[in-house]
Amino acid sequence: MLSRSRIEEGDYVLILINRKRKWVIRVDRSKKFSSDKGILDLNTLIGAEYGSEVPLSTGIKAEIHRPLLIDFIERGFSRATQVIYPKDAGYMIYMSGVSSGSRVLEAGVGSGFLTATIANIVKPHGKVYAYEIRKEFIELALRNLKMLNLNEFVEIKQRDVKEGIDEKDLDAAFIDIPDPWEALNNLYQALKPSAPILFFFPTINQVEKLYEAIKEHKGFSDLRCVEILLREYRVTKGMTRPSTRMIGHTGYIVFARKRKISP
Amino acid sequence: MLSRSRIEEGDYVLILINRKRKWVIRVDRSKKFSSDKGILDLNTLIGAEYGSEVPLSTGIKAEIHRPLLIDFIERGFSRATQVIYPKDAGYMIYMSGVSSGSRVLEAGVGSGFLTATIANIVKPHGKVYAYEIRKEFIELALRNLKMLNLNEFVEIKQRDVKEGIDEKDLDAAFIDIPDPWEALNNLYQALKPSAPILFFFPTINQVEKLYEAIKEHKGFSDLRCVEILLREYRVTKGMTRPSTRMIGHTGYIVFARKRKISP
Amino acid sequence: MLSRSRIEEGDYVLILINRKRKWVIRVDRSKKFSSDKGILDLNTLIGAEYGSEVPLSTGIKAEIHRPLLIDFIERGFSRATQVIYPKDAGYMIYMSGVSSGSRVLEAGVGSGFLTATIANIVKPHGKVYAYEIRKEFIELALRNLKMLNLNEFVEIKQRDVKEGIDEKDLDAAFIDIPDPWEALNNLYQALKPSAPILFFFPTINQVEKLYEAIKEHKGFSDLRCVEILLREYRVTKGMTRPSTRMIGHTGYIVFARKRKISP
Amino acid sequence: MLSRSRIEEGDYVLILINRKRKWVIRVDRSKKFSSDKGILDLNTLIGAEYGSEVPLSTGIKAEIHRPLLIDFIERGFSRATQVIYPKDAGYMIYMSGVSSGSRVLEAGVGSGFLTATIANIVKPHGKVYAYEIRKEFIELALRNLKMLNLNEFVEIKQRDVKEGIDEKDLDAAFIDIPDPWEALNNLYQALKPSAPILFFFPTINQVEKLYEAIKEHKGFSDLRCVEILLREYRVTKGMTRPSTRMIGHTGYIVFARKRKISP
Repeated sequence: MLSRSRIEEGDYVLILINRKRKWVIRVDRSKKFSSDKGILDLNTLIGAEYGSEVPLSTGIKAEIHRPLLIDFIERGFSRATQVIYPKDAGYMIYMSGVSSGSRVLEAGVGSGFLTATIANIVKPHGKVYAYEIRKEFIELALRNLKMLNLNEFVEIKQRDVKEGIDEKDLDAAFIDIPDPWEALNNLYQALKPSAPILFFFPTINQVEKLYEAIKEHKGFSDLRCVEILLREYRVTKGMTRPSTRMIGHTGYIVFARKRKISP
Repeated sequence: MLSRSRIEEGDYVLILINRKRKWVIRVDRSKKFSSDKGILDLNTLIGAEYGSEVPLSTGIKAEIHRPLLIDFIERGFSRATQVIYPKDAGYMIYMSGVSSGSRVLEAGVGSGFLTATIANIVKPHGKVYAYEIRKEFIELALRNLKMLNLNEFVEIKQRDVKEGIDEKDLDAAFIDIPDPWEALNNLYQALKPSAPILFFFPTINQVEKLYEAIKEHKGFSDLRCVEILLREYRVTKGMTRPSTRMIGHTGYIVFARKRKISP
Repeated sequence: MLSRSRIEEGDYVLILINRKRKWVIRVDRSKKFSSDKGILDLNTLIGAEYGSEVPLSTGIKAEIHRPLLIDFIERGFSRATQVIYPKDAGYMIYMSGVSSGSRVLEAGVGSGFLTATIANIVKPHGKVYAYEIRKEFIELALRNLKMLNLNEFVEIKQRDVKEGIDEKDLDAAFIDIPDPWEALNNLYQALKPSAPILFFFPTINQVEKLYEAIKEHKGFSDLRCVEILLREYRVTKGMTRPSTRMIGHTGYIVFARKRKISP
Repeated sequence: MLSRSRIEEGDYVLILINRKRKWVIRVDRSKKFSSDKGILDLNTLIGAEYGSEVPLSTGIKAEIHRPLLIDFIERGFSRATQVIYPKDAGYMIYMSGVSSGSRVLEAGVGSGFLTATIANIVKPHGKVYAYEIRKEFIELALRNLKMLNLNEFVEIKQRDVKEGIDEKDLDAAFIDIPDPWEALNNLYQALKPSAPILFFFPTINQVEKLYEAIKEHKGFSDLRCVEILLREYRVTKGMTRPSTRMIGHTGYIVFARKRKISP
């Protein structure tokens, strides 16, 4: 992690006014940032300390922070598809056990949210091999990854894992495509012995189908399927309660590990 | 990650019979492993491929896997306290944005489950500075960390963060002690500008207290409090349903980031 | 229940086009009903069978149903306050054990949603004594109750239960006011021995306060506090999943029963 | 509801020591009740006021309450099957809109828990027509219903609704059998126009199957499928939190209403 404590030209920063007013932008001294709460001359940010307050044109104050991964994900990235949420991505990463140096397959890149998350974990010694068939998503994902300087840890291929996977001996796989049962054998070939594989599905029917396909294929075992719910709280002294609205469903996560198919 | 595909003397392995029968043990060719399903002569494992099946004395088969972090956590580690579950740890890690190279504070090590999780992410270039006041927990955590060869990325100190924190410019902090509001100033001093801090609390009253204390201290902002629920599914063709019993509560997670206290 | 199967002038009916397009209206042969999907001449409904389809001016069809309690609640009633949802009201009714003939206290009528629900259960031999301090809510609740012909089973009083309760020997009490701990003694006096009392609170702090007050008052025991979550599903062959958005919180329900205060 | 405030011979009472020690028993002056906390001579209860405390042989005190429906359900009834929980039954009753006087079908009586709940609501002017094919469940349900004096409001038939339903013009139906799609036409014939029908299913696959069958049959519309979760809380001043364990799943509830099949 960058340990510089002062803002420089070209840095991405998080402008934080309140819970609903957060933006990740790039500091360009010739530009102004404007919001419904006032205008900020970006030139004034140069040299300011991360975490400090600056006044907008209206006198309302904004905090300027070094953005975290979550800020890029929530406020910086462009999105063109359903994305995998932090509650799900965090759990998937955990279950996979990946860390710096891991060589990981990803199938179904979409907007690159999970790609960035994995790349952040496997860097600087590992690599994400990311398969995506739609060109516009590859471009979008690359743009997103570049914001975080994570693009060098990702190799995106315009290819369908059902057609083939070039890599061997991969440490883990993350699969977010609608019909992964069609790719079981390619996934089996690409993973190293005992390697974990994580699937993400919007519908429960896909989960059932995968279980059935794995039962027949026999190359994976120890399946578990979970769903993760996140409740946000409004915390105020004497008036604390969960938020009235929540995301009720994102998807189901299936974990499995490669087992050797007995001849 | 280790890329050797065959088991050697001294390796930790996961013996997997079924969902409820899993064990992480160390391969010692002079020993036997016994379960209610039969006995396994560990000598026979040497040279076997990870992920392959071996017969127990009863003829029942077990799969032998290279254990993942989650296997050590669930089946290998000793525990003497409440632990932070994968669903919570995964989210906390995600929100912190830590990765290889991060220098991280942990307060309240307990059995070392979260410590191991963070260490796995920050290795090989980072470090976890772990504060724990109870000697027996330090010993337990070290024993657990050694199983994963993660001990070299952790420096455990028998010290209370309320008394002082030696490090400066840390990238993130993970706090699992009952009364962190007493340590706010020390935490503030130890973190670098804009750094994230994650708290874990069993009760909602602690969350309220922290919010009040931070409001007064002014050195942190952008608070959010969440709770994460995990539902496990029993997936069987035509009979799929969530598990009848689930963990209803582990704790509340609070995220905040350091802001500069205006003079 | 009314067993007439054909629609008459003056009936309330549910016009059902689809999940999002439902209305409870009163049949007036001189009026037309209009929606974004077309216009319906209400005159044509007279004599039609409940449950049958009628064409709108556009040719799109609507089903005309005899409305249930839930339809009045969801599509017929006016609301001026937070209301108690079916998931919560159903559980509260169940726990109270009230049935036809029960004499029940309600404190905090609001828009009358829970009042109507209880009245529907205690009719025709029982009564709801409903205390509400705000005149505009009393008028609103009465208007809502009249739609269902339930007003004769409810006696609404513009009075604060903290000031006093006229009735004695009540079978149960339903309390939805912000500070019921101020009314514990009045509630105690109004209920018959062993009678159940159900409280509804938006915040957890109120729950704690009530528990503390009851501990001191000693007139109630066997407390339990629950929260009820409802997930809706989108069911489609091969694509079934929970709804993406859900209500994350309505309130906490506390059950207690009257115990005799030992002298 | 009974308004007698003193206990008499033959009454059912709830003996309440604490959350985990509750029993519904019948007062027989010649008997003693014994628990791990001491013995109670039931003779001493005669004439005592409901809600009052009595000492056990050990000096530990128990409260003696008039049992509510929920007490019979939780502590009095025998069970031989999965039962429908209060959280689910309360919601189903609410959605059905049934009340005193309703004539209701129940298919799949099991231990009679839902039967008792419905009977309690439709009494004294209504009736539950309960179909159950297994003789031993009929006997068990009748025994349970008799405890609550609800048997006269229920007519149990040893018959399969798939074979035929004798009644016509019923106000609502509650279905807890594994394959109700086989009975759709009989259900359609038995219900009055616009009548609601509530189904309960342990698996999501059954829900899908029902939806498909209804789509083809065309006699029901306005389907909605929900799942209800209940979290219990441990409330203690300054230490409030949800219970660690909870029931993760009971079943899915499907609501529909009868629509006229167009010729």
